[in-house]
Amino acid sequence: MSEQIPHWLDKQAELNPDRLAVETYMGEQISFRDLRKRSRGMARALIDEGVKPGDHVAFLSDNTPYFPIFIHAISYIGAVAVLLNTRLTAPEIAFQLKDAHISHFYIGKGYEGIADKSAVGLEMKVKAIEELPILNELDYPLRRELPFEEVYTMMYTSGTTGHPKAVMHTYGNHWYSAIASALNLGINSNDKWLICLPLFHVGGFSVLMKNVIYGMSTHLLEKFDAPLVHDAIIAKGVTHVSVVTVMLQRLLRLLDGETYPKGFRCMLLGGGPVPERLLQETSKRNIPVFQTYGMTETSSQIATLGPDYAFSKIGSAGKALSLAELRIDSHKRGEVGEILVRGPMVSKGYFNRKEEDGIYLRTGDLGYEDEDGFLYVVDRVKDIIISGGENVYPAEVESVLSEMPGVRETGIAGRHDEVWGEVPVAFLVTEAGVTVEDVRTFCNKRLAKFKNPAEIHFVDALPRNASNKLLRRKLFHLLDGETSE
Amino acid sequence: MSEQIPHWLDKQAELNPDRLAVETYMGEQISFRDLRKRSRGMARALIDEGVKPGDHVAFLSDNTPYFPIFIHAISYIGAVAVLLNTRLTAPEIAFQLKDAHISHFYIGKGYEGIADKSAVGLEMKVKAIEELPILNELDYPLRRELPFEEVYTMMYTSGTTGHPKAVMHTYGNHWYSAIASALNLGINSNDKWLICLPLFHVGGFSVLMKNVIYGMSTHLLEKFDAPLVHDAIIAKGVTHVSVVTVMLQRLLRLLDGETYPKGFRCMLLGGGPVPERLLQETSKRNIPVFQTYGMTETSSQIATLGPDYAFSKIGSAGKALSLAELRIDSHKRGEVGEILVRGPMVSKGYFNRKEEDGIYLRTGDLGYEDEDGFLYVVDRVKDIIISGGENVYPAEVESVLSEMPGVRETGIAGRHDEVWGEVPVAFLVTEAGVTVEDVRTFCNKRLAKFKNPAEIHFVDALPRNASNKLLRRKLFHLLDGETSE
Repeated sequence: MSEQIPHWLDKQAELNPDRLAVETYMGEQISFRDLRKRSRGMARALIDEGVKPGDHVAFLSDNTPYFPIFIHAISYIGAVAVLLNTRLTAPEIAFQLKDAHISHFYIGKGYEGIADKSAVGLEMKVKAIEELPILNELDYPLRRELPFEEVYTMMYTSGTTGHPKAVMHTYGNHWYSAIASALNLGINSNDKWLICLPLFHVGGFSVLMKNVIYGMSTHLLEKFDAPLVHDAIIAKGVTHVSVVTVMLQRLLRLLDGETYPKGFRCMLLGGGPVPERLLQETSKRNIPVFQTYGMTETSSQIATLGPDYAFSKIGSAGKALSLAELRIDSHKRGEVGEILVRGPMVSKGYFNRKEEDGIYLRTGDLGYEDEDGFLYVVDRVKDIIISGGENVYPAEVESVLSEMPGVRETGIAGRHDEVWGEVPVAFLVTEAGVTVEDVRTFCNKRLAKFKNPAEIHFVDALPRNASNKLLRRKLFHLLDGETSE
Repeated sequence: MSEQIPHWLDKQAELNPDRLAVETYMGEQISFRDLRKRSRGMARALIDEGVKPGDHVAFLSDNTPYFPIFIHAISYIGAVAVLLNTRLTAPEIAFQLKDAHISHFYIGKGYEGIADKSAVGLEMKVKAIEELPILNELDYPLRRELPFEEVYTMMYTSGTTGHPKAVMHTYGNHWYSAIASALNLGINSNDKWLICLPLFHVGGFSVLMKNVIYGMSTHLLEKFDAPLVHDAIIAKGVTHVSVVTVMLQRLLRLLDGETYPKGFRCMLLGGGPVPERLLQETSKRNIPVFQTYGMTETSSQIATLGPDYAFSKIGSAGKALSLAELRIDSHKRGEVGEILVRGPMVSKGYFNRKEEDGIYLRTGDLGYEDEDGFLYVVDRVKDIIISGGENVYPAEVESVLSEMPGVRETGIAGRHDEVWGEVPVAFLVTEAGVTVEDVRTFCNKRLAKFKNPAEIHFVDALPRNASNKLLRRKLFHLLDGETSE
């Protein structure tokens, strides 16, 4: 019954052929008919390159129109799109290419160098996406149905362990996620969702899914650029934007006493807790902020707080969406415990890793529900650092640093930062002679910029508990009267 | 993944507790919190009466608030609701009670007499729904999940064969139907759908599903009453109405130069082809008419034509909804053939009947697609008569009449009627002495009013083809110079 649905892009091209699917800030406009045509053309080109159903095809690109075209081409073939974070270093990419069993690797402009470097020694084709021929293949026999149970995309996350692993999303995960969001936010035929989050993250990617599942227009930015977002909301008919806190703060500075047009109906705010002062400001400006809780494993939002409750439930991420369920692993309501989630938008697991047990996903996050059932997230994964919307897993940075010659012990913790929300800080026990400069150089080569420690402190010993487990929360106590950079 | 979802009424009571769920024209207002409370209370009362998971529970009632409460109570138990047409005669009901393996039979006000008569000799409890105690059972352990594959409702249809059979709808059928409609018509938090179609038919029932799946308000009328519908659109914030042609014609007469409020955004029009003059009138009055094609087996609409195309595609039922597929069983596009449909809203079959083969449902209806892919229904089931939105199957009426003493042969055909669209007409070969009055009396007892022949003609022989098959379309040729009533 629910095993498969007609290909969603075919359907939109049938129902809304002339409706705007994707527009860029440069003024390029692509209708659903065009998007289908170009996606099918690319599918044919990829098939000519040897891409087969089930192949894992990596993609490393900024937010350009090639992104939606690529992912739809992949779905027309029945391959799997592995979306890589553009901020990663060559060794990080190399790990993912190998781990994900990539057969083909396509790259957007500007990533030729790092792609070649990361694919060294791996057997795969590396090619610029723009070099694929533009074929007109409206009649070529491509896949007509999308099976809900089939894996469609993979995105890497480090999870609680600090070891990067690929979250597998099926067509069903993305579809149900889009529908659950629609049941919460509503759908209008004149909706236009601005994308300024990276498309390789689920926050941006999920808008491309809404685009093709609802038949909704999107306004695509290469990256977050406050004046461009501001102008698009004011003058381009944008009705929805997904942002993280630091972006909203910058947008507010630009608003400068103005208000957004009436048609603007959703500022979807993810990526951690929101300062109360910011909510007061958005309320004063009548900005409809929806605070959300979600993660890669839930295919984006799984709980959302509507603007009606922004103040009465300050700090809450709301309630689980229509198809989702949420439980707190605690003894009684109101008590903090691990957040467990469940629903058809929740990923079944990680590629090539041991299967998790249980029908609920254990998020690793801590939270509680108040007497009205509203969720409060107390700690987004133990010790996780969220820097400008990107997750930094202390364990991952520690693991890299521990490989540096002369480094004996490492501890990473986050500290508050006005601009990025949080930044990682390193505490190292080293042999004599290791300098801050050495550490920076070592990290720069191996870690994405946002994972690089903002401060490096040399200490005599790290705080540990009886079983010798690192106590990350006590790291900053080391600084009481300590020398450091 | 998609096997089950949280109980939809629990979810709405959690997300939108104070939102209006059902209001009646008498001014009664029920919030989602109240609807849940009352439905759970009734579930407990039904359990006390012996209703168990999997039981088939019949319901015979007008459109009252007991209807939604009853169907949700059934879902909290995991039983099956068998919804009976209130226009049926006692023998027709008796057949369905027996055929559907009914264990319990609940009735609304005014149906005590016919219920007792139809249940004679059958082992089942018959009880007035209003006599159930009102229990407050918020904490009683009831079903918390709705499994998509489980049968939830059964409604009788005669299909092409003329033998009544029960269409089984799963939770998934109803859910996907509601979602497909939402993806077409959009969802707003201020939507309010007026119900004036009977709730025992899928056209009315599907609005109760949208009600609880979207968290959408409904305005419930006991039956179609043009002034009440008119007033509700004008003054009660109604945004959607589902009607059949004859209802729309009456509404237009009341509109009398006025227009509906701007917020009124959908007049969903089903039940057969629409006269062009009617469309011209609705267009002049800016009434957003959506013409649809659907049937009990598709859980309501499966194709819909939006108002933008009302004139350029006059007479079309539009295109298959988002999750649905439609094929014409013909050699090339534009040619007439049987309409085949497919999708997660399509019923898997009839209760206790041989399973149909094939992944597409053969509708028995004839139609074609134009060059742009728009569906035109040429003939809604061979020979079917649609009278005021109700299907009359000639074979069923013939079968009843053939049991009358003195009747040798019967043929039923429809003729155009200004008020009802069509009405059935009987052509009989009888022994001497049978009178029109005899036939009327015989039919009145055994057939719902809308199935009773509007005219009765006595003829010498019926037109038949070489293999002796009745040629219903030639029946009216018999009247060229014939005496009759």
